[in-house]
Amino acid sequence: MKLICPLCGRTYDGPVQRCECGGPVEFERFRGEPYIGRSVWERFWDFWPVEPELELSLGEGDTPLVRSKLGKELGIRLYLKNETVNPTWSFKDRGTFLAMSHALKAGHKTVGTVSTGNMAASVAAYASRFGLKSKILVSENASNEKLKAVSVYGGEVVRVSGDYGRLYFESLELGERLGIYFINSDNPFRVEGYKGIAFEIAEGASPDYVLVPTSSGGLFRGIAKGFLELHENGLMDELPTLVAVQAEGCSPICRAFREGKSRVERFENPKTIAKAIANPYPPSGDAVLRLLREFNWKCVSVSDGEVVEAQRRLANEGLFVQPASATGVAALKRLEIPEGAKVVSILTGSGLKTLKGAPEGEVGECPLEELERCLR
Amino acid sequence: MKLICPLCGRTYDGPVQRCECGGPVEFERFRGEPYIGRSVWERFWDFWPVEPELELSLGEGDTPLVRSKLGKELGIRLYLKNETVNPTWSFKDRGTFLAMSHALKAGHKTVGTVSTGNMAASVAAYASRFGLKSKILVSENASNEKLKAVSVYGGEVVRVSGDYGRLYFESLELGERLGIYFINSDNPFRVEGYKGIAFEIAEGASPDYVLVPTSSGGLFRGIAKGFLELHENGLMDELPTLVAVQAEGCSPICRAFREGKSRVERFENPKTIAKAIANPYPPSGDAVLRLLREFNWKCVSVSDGEVVEAQRRLANEGLFVQPASATGVAALKRLEIPEGAKVVSILTGSGLKTLKGAPEGEVGECPLEELERCLR
Repeated sequence: MKLICPLCGRTYDGPVQRCECGGPVEFERFRGEPYIGRSVWERFWDFWPVEPELELSLGEGDTPLVRSKLGKELGIRLYLKNETVNPTWSFKDRGTFLAMSHALKAGHKTVGTVSTGNMAASVAAYASRFGLKSKILVSENASNEKLKAVSVYGGEVVRVSGDYGRLYFESLELGERLGIYFINSDNPFRVEGYKGIAFEIAEGASPDYVLVPTSSGGLFRGIAKGFLELHENGLMDELPTLVAVQAEGCSPICRAFREGKSRVERFENPKTIAKAIANPYPPSGDAVLRLLREFNWKCVSVSDGEVVEAQRRLANEGLFVQPASATGVAALKRLEIPEGAKVVSILTGSGLKTLKGAPEGEVGECPLEELERCLR
Repeated sequence: MKLICPLCGRTYDGPVQRCECGGPVEFERFRGEPYIGRSVWERFWDFWPVEPELELSLGEGDTPLVRSKLGKELGIRLYLKNETVNPTWSFKDRGTFLAMSHALKAGHKTVGTVSTGNMAASVAAYASRFGLKSKILVSENASNEKLKAVSVYGGEVVRVSGDYGRLYFESLELGERLGIYFINSDNPFRVEGYKGIAFEIAEGASPDYVLVPTSSGGLFRGIAKGFLELHENGLMDELPTLVAVQAEGCSPICRAFREGKSRVERFENPKTIAKAIANPYPPSGDAVLRLLREFNWKCVSVSDGEVVEAQRRLANEGLFVQPASATGVAALKRLEIPEGAKVVSILTGSGLKTLKGAPEGEVGECPLEELERCLR
């Protein structure tokens, strides 16, 4: 098991969480070939840093790649990778499952995470599934409603008051000391789990562009590594152009990219309805920045208005997503994509998770006796 | 296309919705063989009454069959068929997709349904996906929150005041007159769509028992027909014992079964937290009753307390379901299942749909400075 820091190049032999330089660490690229198998875990067996605990799988991954009608007006072929149909209804489950497989094998008894949304539910669910205790650290202003979808799984949910941004790093440090394995947003095993999205996309289409809603950077790094491994192993001819998509109201990576900075700086006063991608100081930000530069990829940010419009249009195709998941489709108009290009946008999480803020349709009224008139 | 009434035996050549005798109609049993294919629609291509519109599929079906740890204490092998990961997060999508394929081919411009929950969302979503208009008739006391998850898809949602029970039959009659194709709970195409659940279960396990939360009876009839077709075509050696599971507070089918009645009577004053299966006068009730008798199957009803407990236990395995979906697991203790038997329980819909009433876990509080103490 060899880990490398993409920022400074240091290598580690054990499963560390972060590099001494502060960067995220990642597994070396894997070599292998695909097999026939029911699940993405089996088909890409050579490519995981730990043997997936298939008996404890909840069926994460192997999500549909849906042809969208929205590409037509832009003259592109648009596909939607629907991650909202994972076991806890977001892409997080892929990474959680793999990291939990590691935690179990490594003998950890307790796992944790820092999140108020999709990742909190995912870690709580899989911890229970794996028979491990969990400590889910959430911010003090997380709504009771949101926490219900987390606490139901039976973990220990703790509202932490104070600087929530510091919590990510403090949890890793404390976790090490107290024997709690924290599976945060860019935990190296978690990031590996996201490679499955790239693998499955490549099985269904050979895309020219892949649009990735980007917050901490873990998802982007995972999908990028997946495509890089396919390419290096001769399983894909051309690398797609990856596009990191952020919300304008919290776009630290796009800003640093645009301004030619080598480091991502904290985004002050973040404000967007796309809460699931509103990390003002993304722990994998610098690593994403390097990838964007190295491969000449893109970063695009979109306004809340564009997000709501994209969310509405996706629902009109039968796919109800949370605002963060609509950013990819919202970004389409801001990109100059050649006609006929194959584009995949990742739908990261279910609209049921943010029902309160969902765009409302019209609801009429009708007495039963007048139903015929009302239906005409 | 030949339809037959399972109650009186009348046959029909066109796609009628119900028999003159008031019974539901169903397609004759299909003959065929399975193929290799990515989706259940392709693998069981011979078994659908209409060619599925694969280009418009949202990836419904092909849901995980998860091994449960809950069977251990009962000495059985328990599997959970997780229908909560369908495109609108319930099993309804299978039937909706197939019925919508028919509606499109038949030239209907508008479809409708009578539902306040899963089916409403499903029909609204697929109508939009298929480019059809939709009229979603809901009861006057449906909560605004629930309706948001329906109206977001862009159909026309209408609150109908008056006897909601009558609405099912009135909608079919009016629909015929006004050219609106109603895809209600036991529409014959919808019922065929549910066969996929049986097909997929048979691919993964050869079960001795299958537990089916039962309300209108459409799901039960579909799963039963799927197994019967597998059996008749030599694709399955032994028919499993099917168990219709109802909530005690609304169990018209189990009551009629227990009392030896040949007809299901209206269940007065229904009251249960399992709202999704609280149909007091199930339109396919008599047909289910006949199946139960013909094959010596079972009907079991469970209390709300047992449902909540089962819901909690499922969440502790990482599967958060709505109360109706937990009834199958709740019924386990009430059945005398031989040791070592293979049992499948159907998890019909996501817990996010009924978040308000979900069992609440504990949420603690901790200031950041004291995190170490709190985590110990």
